[in-house]
Amino acid sequence: MIRKTPEPVSPKLSPLPQRAASLLAALRAKMVRTHCITNSVVQKITADGLGALGCLPSMTANPLEIENFVARCDVLLINLGTLDPVRIETIETAIEKANKLGKPWVLDPVLCDVSSIRRDFAKDLLALNPKVVRGNSREMASLPDIPTTTVRVETGEIDTISYQGRTLHTSNGHPLMARITGTGCLSGAMMAAFLAVEHDPFIAATAAMLTLNIAAELAGEISRGPGTMAVDLIDELHLMAPHTITTLAKVAHD
Amino acid sequence: MIRKTPEPVSPKLSPLPQRAASLLAALRAKMVRTHCITNSVVQKITADGLGALGCLPSMTANPLEIENFVARCDVLLINLGTLDPVRIETIETAIEKANKLGKPWVLDPVLCDVSSIRRDFAKDLLALNPKVVRGNSREMASLPDIPTTTVRVETGEIDTISYQGRTLHTSNGHPLMARITGTGCLSGAMMAAFLAVEHDPFIAATAAMLTLNIAAELAGEISRGPGTMAVDLIDELHLMAPHTITTLAKVAHD
Amino acid sequence: MIRKTPEPVSPKLSPLPQRAASLLAALRAKMVRTHCITNSVVQKITADGLGALGCLPSMTANPLEIENFVARCDVLLINLGTLDPVRIETIETAIEKANKLGKPWVLDPVLCDVSSIRRDFAKDLLALNPKVVRGNSREMASLPDIPTTTVRVETGEIDTISYQGRTLHTSNGHPLMARITGTGCLSGAMMAAFLAVEHDPFIAATAAMLTLNIAAELAGEISRGPGTMAVDLIDELHLMAPHTITTLAKVAHD
Repeated sequence: MIRKTPEPVSPKLSPLPQRAASLLAALRAKMVRTHCITNSVVQKITADGLGALGCLPSMTANPLEIENFVARCDVLLINLGTLDPVRIETIETAIEKANKLGKPWVLDPVLCDVSSIRRDFAKDLLALNPKVVRGNSREMASLPDIPTTTVRVETGEIDTISYQGRTLHTSNGHPLMARITGTGCLSGAMMAAFLAVEHDPFIAATAAMLTLNIAAELAGEISRGPGTMAVDLIDELHLMAPHTITTLAKVAHD
Repeated sequence: MIRKTPEPVSPKLSPLPQRAASLLAALRAKMVRTHCITNSVVQKITADGLGALGCLPSMTANPLEIENFVARCDVLLINLGTLDPVRIETIETAIEKANKLGKPWVLDPVLCDVSSIRRDFAKDLLALNPKVVRGNSREMASLPDIPTTTVRVETGEIDTISYQGRTLHTSNGHPLMARITGTGCLSGAMMAAFLAVEHDPFIAATAAMLTLNIAAELAGEISRGPGTMAVDLIDELHLMAPHTITTLAKVAHD
Repeated sequence: MIRKTPEPVSPKLSPLPQRAASLLAALRAKMVRTHCITNSVVQKITADGLGALGCLPSMTANPLEIENFVARCDVLLINLGTLDPVRIETIETAIEKANKLGKPWVLDPVLCDVSSIRRDFAKDLLALNPKVVRGNSREMASLPDIPTTTVRVETGEIDTISYQGRTLHTSNGHPLMARITGTGCLSGAMMAAFLAVEHDPFIAATAAMLTLNIAAELAGEISRGPGTMAVDLIDELHLMAPHTITTLAKVAHD
């Protein structure tokens, strides 16, 4: 595998990429139990992405067992894709338990712009204090009122991360990511995982986006198309050296 | 990647492969919203195959939201794999909405030969006017009465596509396809997608089969086994030049 | 693909690896219908692993249809991951039917150590005579009473297989297997498949573990990380020559 050494993006490294690099090392060392109530389409890529980072994913969405799984996890992801009535009940129980135990959770309101039921449900969940909410531009536009205690992450070609007056933009990534179902959902799961090693949710969310998008950039260099790209992305999450983040991160502040 | 130039199959190109090639180009340009109510085993490969072709897949099977998803989609796939009581209800609502809005849909009656409940349900759905019904020989044998308004596609080593007196056979593909769960299900989803760019369902179904099977042929040339084949197939769907269809298509008329 | 010829592990080949090699050949010849009630995260890797070995997987978990699917299958896998109330009902019906028809089945009590509901359910199922129960050390520790008619397989870096006074350890495999969600679940499905060609469940379980772990070893030699490893594993299951098992098997008896 020959890979051309990337040019540093900026001669003066910002402290945030350096922090992200340390967090990636911390994440790998901790084996974070990450419980994901997520849609059935992306369960495997989410589990494999988390596994590549050394996390321990679990995915049960049984309302009768969810409290046990939340009790043992470090962090929780709530993803609204392939929602159904049982999942709605499970999600409510899971969040109540997580909040009671003080465990951080992330909300990914997948396609909440399409259905009023899902949008209303997402709004109800926003009131329950997620650390981060992540969506694309259409999803986020349908949720104009993000609580001040929640980091707002709008992902796209450029990701915008906002929290309590701070805003930054990350522009790493690769065009093929949009062709692979589940990369956005995986980013939400990774934000949850980073919350286990970083209290500031703005920094945790940024570290997750940088890690995923830089892994995608590296995968894009060796992939033929979206099939190999999805596979190489998992490899890169596993192989990526923390200092690669400081070298490649493209972060701009407002 | 060195790939040997394939020999043209026939010196005189039939117009159908040329039409299929144009449709592939049209499909890539349109970003077809393809809603798939499909079995949980193949949701990811279906979404990734559609994504590789530039389509926008969605997969929700929530009875409370399905009308919203059908309202925004261009085409609909109904796949009966991993059927369950909630899915039955969702499918009925989805088809009613699609028919009301004049949106074309495809029926894939997976394993309807195994269970009388599923076979009877497939028969009920056939009466609701799918544009295409696709199955293997055992599935199709259990559904002898296909309406004249529905294209009948029987897939196998040779695919037979029949509609209102027209019948053709396509013989592209690769033996490893049978070892990869979901290639048949993906073909049904692709037939739905092609219906967004072609009114004649006989031509749309043929274009989908040619695109998938030729991509599989190309993938088969570079794969070691069914693992790499599944990955390379997604790449080939993304990379395939439309004229490759006219060059490689093996189509025979009755 | 250049692959270094592995050294024989032991100069005197034990008869068990030779038996496993014959069973792999028998399995490939038989096209075993393997019905898997398994968790949604691993359905695809399970189906693809079985398909690579020439088996015919099915995955329906609809309580209304499950008896039909059990009636036509050769063997049955019951995996408790992503359990939910409908799945509990389906599992009970499936096992009752399998036992009535004398079809062998395997229990994989995924994460039964986490939830008392799941552990109690696993205990109830153990009383219904599975041929094999497979779990990791935490799962198996939560199920201390395995019936004497059931093979106990504890998987990990070293796998321990115990049955009616016989115990053996297999130590093939690759560290990256732990990073790929579903390799353990696939091993349970493969144990079910091998029961279709071998009456002695101790031998069937051993053959499945050797086949999977040796395929993983071979995949590990050519993989960059857990992404490519998961793909290469499927290829190796398809490509592996039976005599590779006799050459590479690492089996120790107590």
